[in-house]
Amino acid sequence: MNSQTPIHATDVIRHKRDGLSLTTEEIQHFIRGVADQSNPGAPTDAQIAALLMAIFLRGLNPQELADLTSAMRFSGEVFDAAPLHTFTIDKHSTGGVGDKTSLLITPILAAAGLAHPTPAGIPGICVPMISGRSLGHTGGTLDKLETIPGFNTQLSLQQFFDTLKSCGASLIGQTPTLVPADRLLYALRDHTATVESPFLITASIMSKKLAESLNALVLDVKTGSGAFMKSYDDSKHLANLMVQTGTLAGTRTVALLTAMDQPLGRFSGNWVEVWECVDIMQGTRHPMSADLIELTNILSGWMLHLAGQSDTPEAGAILSNEILRSGAAYKAWLKIVAAHNGDISVFEKPAAFHKPFTTRVLNAPTAGYLASMDCTEVGWAVQRMGAGRLKPGGPVSAHAGLEMHSKLGEKIEAGQPLITLFSENESLLAEPYEMLLNTLKITPTPPAPQPLVREVITASA
Amino acid sequence: MNSQTPIHATDVIRHKRDGLSLTTEEIQHFIRGVADQSNPGAPTDAQIAALLMAIFLRGLNPQELADLTSAMRFSGEVFDAAPLHTFTIDKHSTGGVGDKTSLLITPILAAAGLAHPTPAGIPGICVPMISGRSLGHTGGTLDKLETIPGFNTQLSLQQFFDTLKSCGASLIGQTPTLVPADRLLYALRDHTATVESPFLITASIMSKKLAESLNALVLDVKTGSGAFMKSYDDSKHLANLMVQTGTLAGTRTVALLTAMDQPLGRFSGNWVEVWECVDIMQGTRHPMSADLIELTNILSGWMLHLAGQSDTPEAGAILSNEILRSGAAYKAWLKIVAAHNGDISVFEKPAAFHKPFTTRVLNAPTAGYLASMDCTEVGWAVQRMGAGRLKPGGPVSAHAGLEMHSKLGEKIEAGQPLITLFSENESLLAEPYEMLLNTLKITPTPPAPQPLVREVITASA
Repeated sequence: MNSQTPIHATDVIRHKRDGLSLTTEEIQHFIRGVADQSNPGAPTDAQIAALLMAIFLRGLNPQELADLTSAMRFSGEVFDAAPLHTFTIDKHSTGGVGDKTSLLITPILAAAGLAHPTPAGIPGICVPMISGRSLGHTGGTLDKLETIPGFNTQLSLQQFFDTLKSCGASLIGQTPTLVPADRLLYALRDHTATVESPFLITASIMSKKLAESLNALVLDVKTGSGAFMKSYDDSKHLANLMVQTGTLAGTRTVALLTAMDQPLGRFSGNWVEVWECVDIMQGTRHPMSADLIELTNILSGWMLHLAGQSDTPEAGAILSNEILRSGAAYKAWLKIVAAHNGDISVFEKPAAFHKPFTTRVLNAPTAGYLASMDCTEVGWAVQRMGAGRLKPGGPVSAHAGLEMHSKLGEKIEAGQPLITLFSENESLLAEPYEMLLNTLKITPTPPAPQPLVREVITASA
Repeated sequence: MNSQTPIHATDVIRHKRDGLSLTTEEIQHFIRGVADQSNPGAPTDAQIAALLMAIFLRGLNPQELADLTSAMRFSGEVFDAAPLHTFTIDKHSTGGVGDKTSLLITPILAAAGLAHPTPAGIPGICVPMISGRSLGHTGGTLDKLETIPGFNTQLSLQQFFDTLKSCGASLIGQTPTLVPADRLLYALRDHTATVESPFLITASIMSKKLAESLNALVLDVKTGSGAFMKSYDDSKHLANLMVQTGTLAGTRTVALLTAMDQPLGRFSGNWVEVWECVDIMQGTRHPMSADLIELTNILSGWMLHLAGQSDTPEAGAILSNEILRSGAAYKAWLKIVAAHNGDISVFEKPAAFHKPFTTRVLNAPTAGYLASMDCTEVGWAVQRMGAGRLKPGGPVSAHAGLEMHSKLGEKIEAGQPLITLFSENESLLAEPYEMLLNTLKITPTPPAPQPLVREVITASA
């Protein structure tokens, strides 16, 4: 930045307002002020909000988006994985219902890394996963993990580093010092109607993921009725922006557009999702978990491929499935949970640990084929049974949630159980039951089958 | 407003962001919160800024603009002229250099009103003019009036009412209780790069003018190098929006698009402008004041026509000139100034009251025709000689300014005086001198003559 020409926040806003491209210096100066309000010339909340709305309506070109992401990424502390001299990779999902792939992918990749240590004896692949909590109608990895007694998601960056070094994976929550600009911007976006911008979503997600010091990143961008992005084109646009931004930052980035038209797997909730994953890792494959296992292997397959463990993503998916079947993933899982101070004895009888106060079964009102549902509505039903928060920072129920007994496209008899609802509070079942009953559509003819993965976006695409 | 469906600021922002039309209730609710921050649900500065930027980029339809203007107009106290049972009319200019028509128009209209009293003995026309101060490169009527010793521009609304009742015109500054929403919005617009929106400019100007309780309003919308709006189309768009908004509010509104390519009249500054007007009202017509007198008569002519004193605006202009020539305007002027506690003895020898510390003459560097100038640059030169403020709330020099010795299109000899610069501080002359020298263009052939009034916008146009 040229000290001869100070940058004024108002000029930055004016340039974006008029559809001009912001310079790297303008973006860095603005975001530096966002993160440090004591900075002379730091923008006011009103100025930040004006710029957010201008970005919402004018968009950002690839260089501006990379600059914004980078400025946010470096607005606070950054996790430094370089001293591990290993290959770092992570997966990020844009959020879904019953989406528990993180609980399977981290041990699969950790197992692969433990099997191929570096010369210094460190896992050859590490997954430094910084996760989130339940948001809107979607579940959160941290909320699921914290149903394991003792599991600590609030590690310091040093503990995170040490866990990666010994286990090959660690799952923690956002720390106060990582990417502080995102926290401030998100709070303002939330009440200024600037949340849904694909540019601002990309900068928010990618600044946090890139702060993990990644060699590669696989993005699971949801599309369908349970995705935050409502149209396929919107999901694809977001996927392209994220891949472009990761690539410009020097991280190999791939995005998969995947179906979120129904809950993924058998269970949706918190502990029930851990239980489903433990079953799979212990070798029990419930028929309702088939789509979860398929998506897990596809995503892990891409990660193993990017980490150099397979020649193709398809070969990687086969390797992922072998790591699951062999018990290596479960062994890595126990190691990771123990490193996070979690009580691994609950995995001995995971079904027994599930203690809903009350259950209710939703039976098919008519015969036919399970044709469709509004999966966002299903997600809200799960949240309202107690799996989500009534207010920010409040508790979530470990045992609330639902079990799917049928999947889209299946033939249904009248009266057949479709969904079992669980809650720790009887009064929380009536409304979700009605929501589910109203959103499940049964038709006389089967719906067209939909692939789980719709499209893969790579930097060269 | 339906109490069943509370209005949230975020929804209002989202609707405008998405290009939807805001409802009357949404706009009223939002502006009520702007004016009363103690209101539950009052928008934050960030929310206001986000809405301002969304309006900047999405615009407002005629009903939304009328609703915003109305909500702002009624955000505080409103001047009520109804008990006068007279015809209220005002003129507003979008700002220029040397534009002192307000100082002539108010006494001309007051004289016409005093000559035609109502049955209750009140002037048949009243001009309740609430004016502003120097802004950017333009002068301010209040700053000019306050060079008259004792002149009080800070009357209470009751004193304003009483002055109108006795004199037919009064000129005051904005009060803290009138249109408070505009003050808050303007302060935010100023640092969020949302000043230049024709929609927000219209709402700001028209909310304050309509708060004067007007039967009719004549707008002098400047166009050319000294206007805030840089293109003719921008000026015309603003004029159309203001006429449309005034008309929807029930005030007969006319806009004239007038040339601001050079300073209007002989002098630009503060006291020097009062002096020029007093000369004219006393019957001395300096050749350099010809354009000022012409524009004054045209604007007053429209006002007299709208007030029912002439069949046509053209006949009104002739009547205006008669009121000036007869001395009736000067008589009304003395009455108005005295009612504002001003010392009218300074008008006996206005030239003697002009006391610049130093003067400098800019002579023509070459022979030819005075072809053009950047009139905004000329305005800034006047401000920097001391006529404007170095910081908000600071003092202005009464005697700084300039005198034009030539007008655009005139034949010039090399070395002939073009402009005399005045300042109370020798050190403030060098930069303005260079600015003026650089911006005056002298060409071998005469420029095409330009009319003073380019276009008239009426509600039916």
